[in-house]
Amino acid sequence: MKQNPIGIIDSGVGGLTVVKEIIRQLPNESIVYIGDTARCPYGSRPKEEIMKFTIEMTKYLERFQIKMLIIACNTATAVALQHLRKKLSIPVLGVVHPGARAAIKGTSKNRIGVIGTEVTIGSKAYETALQSIQKRTIVYGLACPEFVPLVESGQWSGPIAEKTVENSLAPLKKKDIDTLILGCTHYPLLEPLIRDYLGDDVQIISSGEETAREASVILDHTKSLNDTNIKPKYRFFTTGCVSSFKEIARSWLCLENIDVQSINLSNVQVNREVSSK
Amino acid sequence: MKQNPIGIIDSGVGGLTVVKEIIRQLPNESIVYIGDTARCPYGSRPKEEIMKFTIEMTKYLERFQIKMLIIACNTATAVALQHLRKKLSIPVLGVVHPGARAAIKGTSKNRIGVIGTEVTIGSKAYETALQSIQKRTIVYGLACPEFVPLVESGQWSGPIAEKTVENSLAPLKKKDIDTLILGCTHYPLLEPLIRDYLGDDVQIISSGEETAREASVILDHTKSLNDTNIKPKYRFFTTGCVSSFKEIARSWLCLENIDVQSINLSNVQVNREVSSK
Repeated sequence: MKQNPIGIIDSGVGGLTVVKEIIRQLPNESIVYIGDTARCPYGSRPKEEIMKFTIEMTKYLERFQIKMLIIACNTATAVALQHLRKKLSIPVLGVVHPGARAAIKGTSKNRIGVIGTEVTIGSKAYETALQSIQKRTIVYGLACPEFVPLVESGQWSGPIAEKTVENSLAPLKKKDIDTLILGCTHYPLLEPLIRDYLGDDVQIISSGEETAREASVILDHTKSLNDTNIKPKYRFFTTGCVSSFKEIARSWLCLENIDVQSINLSNVQVNREVSSK
Repeated sequence: MKQNPIGIIDSGVGGLTVVKEIIRQLPNESIVYIGDTARCPYGSRPKEEIMKFTIEMTKYLERFQIKMLIIACNTATAVALQHLRKKLSIPVLGVVHPGARAAIKGTSKNRIGVIGTEVTIGSKAYETALQSIQKRTIVYGLACPEFVPLVESGQWSGPIAEKTVENSLAPLKKKDIDTLILGCTHYPLLEPLIRDYLGDDVQIISSGEETAREASVILDHTKSLNDTNIKPKYRFFTTGCVSSFKEIARSWLCLENIDVQSINLSNVQVNREVSSK
């Protein structure tokens, strides 16, 4: 059990920001990752579809006997976390609560900004999480639908990215926030530009980093941290183009010889146990 | 169960830094606190004695049906955490692992300083925790035995405190650390002076703050966060002087009408279940 991998699912490459932090903060743990790149972005899709796709990825991971599931996509967390927590016997982590808890820990003004996809912001998942912890928190949610396509196409720096970040975040500039949650796991790749635009007075919380930290807490609490000497294995699956996924993963994770395989999730048989129907 | 209090034990007033963060990060939770001020500091005592005192405090808390126990004292954590985790059926948190995890998350150089009492530093509890997460971490431990008496006597600012901080931390100045763990819950009261002396390039981790964050993660994971509308209650017990405990608690927690009662722990009957013998 201890040496079983952690399963991580995402709509595309964004969840690699969580992978990077798991490798750094939990270097003994093996990982199996699915990026549903072919159907990315999830952020503007109907909820039923997001639920279906998320369940398909979870079902695919069953064969690896994962000891923990991380939904590394904010949109899928907002839609499917509660459902999967009820259905699975392993710990299931989303990225919303870790981000919310870190923001509450960090804010002194109780004025917090959240950026994410349209579905994440529309779901008010962060607002609910933040205010369930601290009622007095003032939350400014802002959808940034142009960020995910930028990152998925590998253009997370340069003048186009700069301009997109400035235009998208302009409404947040005057809100006097002291903390900004990157409520989408794709966004940390844009963090240097976001930091330049908002300035040093705004603390930036990456939900991905915080999720890796909480995975560590829960694995420790449930006594399932890998304390064997077996070298960890990293396996990646994508529903999209293997070579472009590999290129982004290599550059972001600084790993050579990455094992990336192509899968087709629409063939996955979803049984009643995991299905939402 | 959800509205049952969190139990927090400490050798004195240091654990109030954990209380402050629990109140801020988990404002719905009730707290019962014991500060063993009469027998403080623990940091230079024999391990058997620290174990005995810690068990006496835990035993006293049984009557409050606490849903979680936090050992808010690094010395007691280093000595008694594993024992109490085995004996109690509720989650038991120490302050060492939360501090270690936050340091690993924050460091980029993998060069981490830890300051604490003689027992904490001598136990190498942080070194073990840090290196079990990331083998390559270089850890510089430094005992600062003069800090606890300063804080317990209310003298955590002013020229004497400044001089003591400077003299104590001088050996760390040249170690090129980028992260310092305050491995004693008394030390956050000295944090402004420590920050002034070490400069902004060293990130300071307060184990207490991090422990509150992890308490939140585990209560969420075990579905025992208080989501009722019942107003939280804070109760404090000290084995020492009630009025001086009250004065420090009021100033540190910014709470009026603090309920502080005197107790005598040497009368506590320790049964076989909790006893280490």
